[in-house]
Amino acid sequence: MNPRRRVVSIIGGAECSEKEVQIAEELGYLLGEQDVIIVCGGRGGVMEAACRGAQRAGGITIGILPNLDPSEGNPYLDVAIPTGMGHARNALIAQAGQCVIAIGGGYGTLSEIGIALKIGRDVVGIGTWEAVDKSGKMIKIMRADNAREAVEFALGDSLSKNQ
Amino acid sequence: MNPRRRVVSIIGGAECSEKEVQIAEELGYLLGEQDVIIVCGGRGGVMEAACRGAQRAGGITIGILPNLDPSEGNPYLDVAIPTGMGHARNALIAQAGQCVIAIGGGYGTLSEIGIALKIGRDVVGIGTWEAVDKSGKMIKIMRADNAREAVEFALGDSLSKNQ
Amino acid sequence: MNPRRRVVSIIGGAECSEKEVQIAEELGYLLGEQDVIIVCGGRGGVMEAACRGAQRAGGITIGILPNLDPSEGNPYLDVAIPTGMGHARNALIAQAGQCVIAIGGGYGTLSEIGIALKIGRDVVGIGTWEAVDKSGKMIKIMRADNAREAVEFALGDSLSKNQ
Amino acid sequence: MNPRRRVVSIIGGAECSEKEVQIAEELGYLLGEQDVIIVCGGRGGVMEAACRGAQRAGGITIGILPNLDPSEGNPYLDVAIPTGMGHARNALIAQAGQCVIAIGGGYGTLSEIGIALKIGRDVVGIGTWEAVDKSGKMIKIMRADNAREAVEFALGDSLSKNQ
Repeated sequence: MNPRRRVVSIIGGAECSEKEVQIAEELGYLLGEQDVIIVCGGRGGVMEAACRGAQRAGGITIGILPNLDPSEGNPYLDVAIPTGMGHARNALIAQAGQCVIAIGGGYGTLSEIGIALKIGRDVVGIGTWEAVDKSGKMIKIMRADNAREAVEFALGDSLSKNQ
Repeated sequence: MNPRRRVVSIIGGAECSEKEVQIAEELGYLLGEQDVIIVCGGRGGVMEAACRGAQRAGGITIGILPNLDPSEGNPYLDVAIPTGMGHARNALIAQAGQCVIAIGGGYGTLSEIGIALKIGRDVVGIGTWEAVDKSGKMIKIMRADNAREAVEFALGDSLSKNQ
Repeated sequence: MNPRRRVVSIIGGAECSEKEVQIAEELGYLLGEQDVIIVCGGRGGVMEAACRGAQRAGGITIGILPNLDPSEGNPYLDVAIPTGMGHARNALIAQAGQCVIAIGGGYGTLSEIGIALKIGRDVVGIGTWEAVDKSGKMIKIMRADNAREAVEFALGDSLSKNQ
Repeated sequence: MNPRRRVVSIIGGAECSEKEVQIAEELGYLLGEQDVIIVCGGRGGVMEAACRGAQRAGGITIGILPNLDPSEGNPYLDVAIPTGMGHARNALIAQAGQCVIAIGGGYGTLSEIGIALKIGRDVVGIGTWEAVDKSGKMIKIMRADNAREAVEFALGDSLSKNQ
């Protein structure tokens, strides 16, 4: 019986800036080094970069794909889970990690942040959404300036807590 | 062959203020009067009030429930669809309506707004989330001050477009 | 507060025989006459015929579609719920009705029968799957010879029990 | 860039016989030896035994859980994916592997077999369901007498084909 592996969900856009690619790749590398499994949406952009970084460090990557065709996953997935569930699979990504790290991202990422916070997951954000509810309360995202800081937040606090 | 019915999704918190209850009930009434079917998460608060209003006007209400037990739905549902899918059912609610109207709401509502915008649905908001992405761009929500205005936005623009 | 409507799920193939079309249409008609709401997968074949019959009798029809495009639904749906969830939406169809009626059908129908029985729904079958588990136990399907008998099983037993 | 790992889905009852436990454990072991990743429903019985066998051989195991609580997974999961989706998660299990191996099983297993066949996955069965459609056609399951034969079917045919 192996200990359950630590899992971090990485969310962010399939389209993203070069800067975000670098951050995501470093993030994947740092988590892979720590033997943390990466779960993501399995597509390009931030997701692909994070997987590439994780595999460089010997880590394992899992992509929860929106469609049924596993070949749509990026080339750096160890395991592709083809859900065929479209956007409803966003909930699975948000729930899979003991912590969720968001890099930039669009509306899909916003929906994943919503689900993650709804179920009490820690969310770490690098240059991602800000949101304010009707009463003026900000969403609870731990803001990190770079990959190293994000990993510290994730491994220090969230993973020890939610494992 | 009947014409396909117009459907509006109403989202918002199971816990909400008395003011929000009033708005939601009026909203449901106005939509029911127009023979628009209400889809919601089927629980209490904003959802229950909207259904109560819709039924008073002779409208039909559908609740897409998170659990498997249909009796968890509020008493003003004509049809309960017990998904047993938890938060992943939020995507179904966001997708069901030709337009989505948000009243207040918490993290679940935020996730539904994210999905709705992701798939290009018009979102009308009454006292609900504001959100800004990394580049400073605000989410595209049509802001309404009251139920009547929300219905005008929904029926005037969205329903004619997305039907 | 209206009483919750009775709901029956009708499952069966998008491709089917002319005989099955006739049975499905009569089934829909008989249920619609009784003010029972029909839930189905929203596509052609058995599903379309059942919806057509139900609408002829003034009934309401709901299609839980596999894709995101509501226009893929058959023309006899009052409400289309576009899930974008592919085959995972089969569970929703099996769960939606207080009783499930299967007419013929292929592997998708078999999966729906499995889910329905798993959660304890009564399943009525007209010319549909037989299955035997490892111990030689047959699946529990009430076999009907025609639409009228299927409705008697459904309304007599199942709906009064599971409402 | 690592090569995508081969994945086999193992399905079967949470309640099962001692014989099935032995078969499942050997099956997991043989697949783990070949570096094949096991995906299953993450619970007890057949699922737990298969995971235990796989981990003994150094393999990696993934459980796609019905609920949101990862601690409900069996102790031999490397990764728990808590879906909160209930029975709708059966589709994900059936789709995840390039091949599906069924050992015994109840209605949930029957639903997974239905989905797997619907999307064209090879299904290998050891003492599991038989089913016949309305026209008398048997479902297409490759029947194996023991774990070793099941693995030969799975690795010889299915994995080379569907990878």
